[in-house]
Amino acid sequence: MQITINIELMDGPSLQHQIFESIRRQILDGHLKTGSLLPSTRDLSQQLGVSRNTVTLAYNRLIVEDYIFTRKTVGTFVNEHLPESFPVPEETSSPDQATGELHSLRHPVLFKGKSQDVVNPNRRKLDIDFWVGRPDPHTFPTKAWRRILLKNLSIAGSSLTEYSNPVGILKLRQAIAEHLGPARGIKASANQIIIVNGIQEGLNLVSRLLIKEGTQVVTECPCYQGAAYTFESYGARINPVPVDNAGMDVEKLPLGQTSLAYVTPSHQYPMGGTLSLERRLRLLNWASATGAYIVEDDYDSDFRYNGSPLMAIAGQDRNDCVIYMGTFSKSIGAGLRLGYLVMPKDLVEPAKTVKTLMDNGHSYLDQAIIADFISSGFFAKHLRSIRHTYLIRRNTLVDSLQKHFGQISLSGLDGGMHIAWYLPKSFPAANEVQALAEGIGVGAYSMESAAACHLCYNECSDRIIVLGYSSLNEGQIREGIARLAGVLQLKIK
Amino acid sequence: MQITINIELMDGPSLQHQIFESIRRQILDGHLKTGSLLPSTRDLSQQLGVSRNTVTLAYNRLIVEDYIFTRKTVGTFVNEHLPESFPVPEETSSPDQATGELHSLRHPVLFKGKSQDVVNPNRRKLDIDFWVGRPDPHTFPTKAWRRILLKNLSIAGSSLTEYSNPVGILKLRQAIAEHLGPARGIKASANQIIIVNGIQEGLNLVSRLLIKEGTQVVTECPCYQGAAYTFESYGARINPVPVDNAGMDVEKLPLGQTSLAYVTPSHQYPMGGTLSLERRLRLLNWASATGAYIVEDDYDSDFRYNGSPLMAIAGQDRNDCVIYMGTFSKSIGAGLRLGYLVMPKDLVEPAKTVKTLMDNGHSYLDQAIIADFISSGFFAKHLRSIRHTYLIRRNTLVDSLQKHFGQISLSGLDGGMHIAWYLPKSFPAANEVQALAEGIGVGAYSMESAAACHLCYNECSDRIIVLGYSSLNEGQIREGIARLAGVLQLKIK
Repeated sequence: MQITINIELMDGPSLQHQIFESIRRQILDGHLKTGSLLPSTRDLSQQLGVSRNTVTLAYNRLIVEDYIFTRKTVGTFVNEHLPESFPVPEETSSPDQATGELHSLRHPVLFKGKSQDVVNPNRRKLDIDFWVGRPDPHTFPTKAWRRILLKNLSIAGSSLTEYSNPVGILKLRQAIAEHLGPARGIKASANQIIIVNGIQEGLNLVSRLLIKEGTQVVTECPCYQGAAYTFESYGARINPVPVDNAGMDVEKLPLGQTSLAYVTPSHQYPMGGTLSLERRLRLLNWASATGAYIVEDDYDSDFRYNGSPLMAIAGQDRNDCVIYMGTFSKSIGAGLRLGYLVMPKDLVEPAKTVKTLMDNGHSYLDQAIIADFISSGFFAKHLRSIRHTYLIRRNTLVDSLQKHFGQISLSGLDGGMHIAWYLPKSFPAANEVQALAEGIGVGAYSMESAAACHLCYNECSDRIIVLGYSSLNEGQIREGIARLAGVLQLKIK
Repeated sequence: MQITINIELMDGPSLQHQIFESIRRQILDGHLKTGSLLPSTRDLSQQLGVSRNTVTLAYNRLIVEDYIFTRKTVGTFVNEHLPESFPVPEETSSPDQATGELHSLRHPVLFKGKSQDVVNPNRRKLDIDFWVGRPDPHTFPTKAWRRILLKNLSIAGSSLTEYSNPVGILKLRQAIAEHLGPARGIKASANQIIIVNGIQEGLNLVSRLLIKEGTQVVTECPCYQGAAYTFESYGARINPVPVDNAGMDVEKLPLGQTSLAYVTPSHQYPMGGTLSLERRLRLLNWASATGAYIVEDDYDSDFRYNGSPLMAIAGQDRNDCVIYMGTFSKSIGAGLRLGYLVMPKDLVEPAKTVKTLMDNGHSYLDQAIIADFISSGFFAKHLRSIRHTYLIRRNTLVDSLQKHFGQISLSGLDGGMHIAWYLPKSFPAANEVQALAEGIGVGAYSMESAAACHLCYNECSDRIIVLGYSSLNEGQIREGIARLAGVLQLKIK
């Protein structure tokens, strides 16, 4: 029995490929049954108006891939060994029924959870965007980067083609260890350092080590969404501890068994407070008494404007209970995707295993460049330069706010790349302010939109506007706040 | 009361920093009690033989950081608000007791599991190493790479400093989608593609979506360790299905509810068989009947020596049940750390959430370079060139083995970067062959050492030697096999 094969030849793929693909699809769709006879190459070539050789080549490929076979002097057939019934494509059954059936049968998605937004979904609507955590693109050290990159590319050898140590290349881990002593007061060996894709991957690594369904975890409140959502996704019960201007209120830490307390002591996210020394030590005491680990997220500590940077809690830790997390996302750029953990000695081995299981390590070239960038002194110079730039921007932002709104209440001024503004009582709620600002092309954010979650609601929850200033120049900052003042004046009761 | 402060001034950090750090440590160690009086700056400067200004600067920093405070005309004191008892450093208690106590108190590591070895731990001992999965460093397209890299670096703008889409930049996802049609017969939109750090990260993403404690997972047997260990680490019960020369024996697939079946159909790892079309279709039928997903790990399908590459199972899937995994680790280099998943449409949204939670995405520059490398046609050209190189090496390896060992039984010849050699009965076991080879500077691997695990033991388990040939030139291959023949001749019964 001869079967009509309808092939519409199109531009694009080769004729041979189109014939191959069309017959293959018809076999998979069940339109060409197993064992059925195909037209001869001569007939098909005439039918399609293509050379016989083209059809022969398509048939040969179908034979190689076992879709069809040839019986000498008899003809070419669809392979008889293929299963007689194929999975029914959804479009051939009645759609509703098919979908219903398939979905009830299909193994369910077991993951339940949410994720943070690191890219502003509305960025294209805005002229002036106070979105948080964006280094200024003009500060990227392109020239030094290019030079170090070309050098490393030319000497890379097998480092580009082969796997390297999943926890990071040694020269980067050494450079970080040496940087952390003077910069953050942390004494760590390269062996304790694990290179990660960024703090977000670090949070997953820590979660895999320490969290199972029902494990208690302490977070700040409000807290960075990326952390809270990650812990929750591994089954953690979150116990939020409120923060004030001096960071987490450690008197309110729970007494029960806790796996870890996640803190942002240099510049609390999003409120911006610095955890006081007294509280740091009490937090260490608490960790020692309860057996909890402290997870110190030091995301933007490179920028300290008043006084020298406070030493990290990891540098005050005498009991090997602090997991320190650092990143190059704020100090160089988030497009690099590199950060690091400093693990307590007892956790180094299991952390290496988890990291290897997670992803076999990071881009060799990026690691080598950052290592050289630190070791050569460029990194320290780069930090001094952008610290100066960001300080001027912070001052411009504070001045502009004061000029337009008079006496205002701000927090987070001592460092970092953003501040939190407590809205006066006469102002609308934060999400309304955000919407008004968006209407005039200005991005200004409620806590929720700024990737913070407020687990223990209080009267401040909808009274905070978060303003990132690092990627806006002074003119943009002044213009943005002026526009905001213009639209808010109409709304202030 | 005057307290003696012992400071040994060393080379290195500034004097001011040394004084600051020493007093800080003594406070944290409890040697300087809260509320106690410190020497005056004049006394300490005389005692240490340094300028008074240096001591004053160190004291100022201690004041800024809240360790000490000054009462006018009275003196300088350790802060009274610090907690009176600090966590006891381990070295001050009796070590055993302290360690014992601390360990029993400390929150336990909840992660239990193993990880795969992607870097050969013994590589430095070997002259000629048949370690699997290493592209030849000489094939890395350095010249084209440098040009594309410099172009992308110069136009990167804010892409280096800001976060981009966690699932990958659009131009890379589009380039991959366009590549997969002709190369692997997969019709996918850019929206279904998720860029990952490599297949290992992809396995974690899939596990987080589909596996919980007790979930049944099917793997091949033997199976790639990285996959089996990852599934196990999320609590999967693994149901291994044996493979033969035509890949997984699909007749032995289990009937019970299964979340996913993990397969390497192009070139089974480590045995090298190609899953036959008949089995592919039966596997799809099974997935449709049980509701399981098929996870298709297509790690080295770019290298096919006999006939054209078989289309991927994902290209035969009519029911949206195949999760396809590809990587640039074999085709360009493992030092890049980039791969991708093609998700069934129903899993796209949850997969995006999981990916974002896992790590906020990948290095911008690496993604942009690979996208241009594919779009410009360099990738296809590069593949043709190395395919030719690897084919010659495969032939040399087979010839050398035949020359020295006569009639031999090999599998995995049709493609990839390694073959499996079934040792003749008269030969010692695989781990003994590996040890003998190592003794003469040659790396030749038992399944276990080649990152494969044999979950259902059979008589073959210790009779297979895995030989990767892609990174050795013909002379090295001949020399390696000659050495192996020399040492084995003495041992053959």
